[in-house]
Amino acid sequence: MALVVQKYGGSSVADAERIKRVAERIVDTRKAGDDVVVIVSAMGDTTDELLELAHQVSPLPPGRELDMLLTSGERISMALLAMAIHNLGYEARSYTGSQAGVITTSAHGRARIIDVTPGRLLTALDEGAIAIVAGFQGVSQDTKDITTLGRGGSDTTAVAVAAALRADVCEIYTDVDGVFTADPRIVPNARRIEQITYEEMLELAACGAKVLMLRCVEYARRYGMPIHVRSSYSNKPGTIVSGSMEDLPVEQALITGVAHDPSEAKITIVGVPDEPGEAAHLFETVALAETNIDMIVQNVSTEGTGRTDISFTLPKSDGPAAMAALGKIKEKVGFKGLLFDDHVGKVSLIGAGMRSHPGVAAKFFAALAEAGVNIEMISTSEIRVSVVCRDTDLDAAVVAIHNAFDLGGDEEAVVYAGTGR
Amino acid sequence: MALVVQKYGGSSVADAERIKRVAERIVDTRKAGDDVVVIVSAMGDTTDELLELAHQVSPLPPGRELDMLLTSGERISMALLAMAIHNLGYEARSYTGSQAGVITTSAHGRARIIDVTPGRLLTALDEGAIAIVAGFQGVSQDTKDITTLGRGGSDTTAVAVAAALRADVCEIYTDVDGVFTADPRIVPNARRIEQITYEEMLELAACGAKVLMLRCVEYARRYGMPIHVRSSYSNKPGTIVSGSMEDLPVEQALITGVAHDPSEAKITIVGVPDEPGEAAHLFETVALAETNIDMIVQNVSTEGTGRTDISFTLPKSDGPAAMAALGKIKEKVGFKGLLFDDHVGKVSLIGAGMRSHPGVAAKFFAALAEAGVNIEMISTSEIRVSVVCRDTDLDAAVVAIHNAFDLGGDEEAVVYAGTGR
Repeated sequence: MALVVQKYGGSSVADAERIKRVAERIVDTRKAGDDVVVIVSAMGDTTDELLELAHQVSPLPPGRELDMLLTSGERISMALLAMAIHNLGYEARSYTGSQAGVITTSAHGRARIIDVTPGRLLTALDEGAIAIVAGFQGVSQDTKDITTLGRGGSDTTAVAVAAALRADVCEIYTDVDGVFTADPRIVPNARRIEQITYEEMLELAACGAKVLMLRCVEYARRYGMPIHVRSSYSNKPGTIVSGSMEDLPVEQALITGVAHDPSEAKITIVGVPDEPGEAAHLFETVALAETNIDMIVQNVSTEGTGRTDISFTLPKSDGPAAMAALGKIKEKVGFKGLLFDDHVGKVSLIGAGMRSHPGVAAKFFAALAEAGVNIEMISTSEIRVSVVCRDTDLDAAVVAIHNAFDLGGDEEAVVYAGTGR
Repeated sequence: MALVVQKYGGSSVADAERIKRVAERIVDTRKAGDDVVVIVSAMGDTTDELLELAHQVSPLPPGRELDMLLTSGERISMALLAMAIHNLGYEARSYTGSQAGVITTSAHGRARIIDVTPGRLLTALDEGAIAIVAGFQGVSQDTKDITTLGRGGSDTTAVAVAAALRADVCEIYTDVDGVFTADPRIVPNARRIEQITYEEMLELAACGAKVLMLRCVEYARRYGMPIHVRSSYSNKPGTIVSGSMEDLPVEQALITGVAHDPSEAKITIVGVPDEPGEAAHLFETVALAETNIDMIVQNVSTEGTGRTDISFTLPKSDGPAAMAALGKIKEKVGFKGLLFDDHVGKVSLIGAGMRSHPGVAAKFFAALAEAGVNIEMISTSEIRVSVVCRDTDLDAAVVAIHNAFDLGGDEEAVVYAGTGR
């Protein structure tokens, strides 16, 4: 008898009919003899509706109260799911993040999990019940206030609870059949990846693959918890995320997949005095504006001028704050101008085999050149190569790279509507 | 500086605009220098919408999960109210029933408050914040599960929290201007009662006055907590519920008011053998069907037959269960038949001065006779006389009694739409 943790996103429980279908799937697992703990997100658009209500009463609602408000979303979905399971003749009990022992920092809206003390869940399992846990939420260690974990929070809850319970596997149910060699909406013959290491999955997630959030994969790697990514709408085998690159056989497939990310913008600081410490000063300023910088490129100093250009990418939504912060230090640093470009896209190739095969980068650039894609920035890691290009070239770049490395399969991937949180 | 507990019902916080108005009223109290703790119900129709969702997934949802679901209603309204207060520049923190220390029995859907341990509320007040508490909900002492208090629960929460905090007053905001000498929808010149004792208010509530629930008044009497019933929509002075009958001056107004109740039905058990123990057996049977019996009348045994008729009233909704339970013992007890009549109404006259004025009952019956109202059952207490009549006679009976005792005022009462829970 195994202990299985299952996580269902908001689109999987968007209405009463879908909740009943999820209940049947959970009961099927229980019938097969396994203990089941379920993590559930808020129903469909609940979170957006609650945010809309909040903004009707306050332009800038305090974080503590916003978290109190938003956590009612999972409270509703988890209670309904427990009812639907009861109705199938199985005992189910729902638990808030606080009741399930999800202890977090007190950073409202972006709390991090410190510890999980799942005593009540263990009691429920011992008594033969299915435990339903609210995703995305916890209780702060210091203030005992209700917190939310921010984007990807429910996946992280699932992995953290699975690790605390020493579960055999953490199943993440989503609206795709698993992790693919590229986004099937762009590359119709993208192939499902059967098994992938934590490191590769981290790179994919960091480079724009939406199927799993970075922090959830980080958590899983830290605790060695296998993640099984599966579709809520089919019984296909999905993708297993587990194991380290170090354990891979040398003959392991060279390349894992192609990720793309249209959500970044590029800022160029023009005419920066080419003196030690200037770059550090600029990026300290950007960091103080709470901006997440991704890639950075510094051009060679233009001969004779003693000045250089520095470009970096960041999430589009962080753009205004970063531009404002940099604008304030223009005179002091003495750079000449700022350019903001939100028509860029990033495409990345990821593969554990890459580090021992120096030809990969050459083939990658050749494919882009052949497709007529102009490269604006380049960044690499041991198992990844990424470039920034025009956003209008992004899809063509993904297809060209996917073809060049022969990543496609025979079966067409199925894509469902909706997203979770 | 006083400590004021304020309770706002669901219609007072039905949408963003009303929440903002309530926030202003709370801030006005705070500005006047008082500490404020607020108890709030779920917004408008939230509870009904959640119940509808529950019934979409399960015909008979388990009580634990139904309570988990319904308590999301106050979570939403209290967080929004705290945000609206923040937006006016005052610190406010919302607390669930569990966080506010509302400890209850574990009877889901109809839990009773055992104790209130308001440590976190006191800390919030000490730190200068306004505390917002979810009404209607608590946490069970034994199982630590979330519970709801059932009908009138938010009013009871307010009084219980006020008592635990040793507040100076518990203000219950509602959709009428206070407690009236009769329902202003039936008697347009009904007069607002300025001050009323707990005992009189208990009788009014028990006899159908909707403004305060019985259990909330019982709680207030036990702890000597003054209740101030006021309108959410005006600044009129309202009604103070406080003090005991024993403390009233002898010259206190004879009569307090007229209550009416159209929600009861009458069951008549025909031809019951007139032997000791038969009535007890019948009412034990009804009690086992979880029925609340109100008035009971037993006729004099019809001469020579050795049989009698017994009639009693009960909530209409309990009728089917009681009829079914009695039907099952018809042969065993040997009564001849059962009659169910849901076209009855009850009208009651309440007044602390009544006990020392034997003429009240006579005047009461004379007024009904003059109005052509036929009396079917009579019941009295020290400070109350009630009769059951046809439901079609009920309004006329209320008006006739109100006039006979000259209870009217000059000012027309204002009635607002909507109800709380």
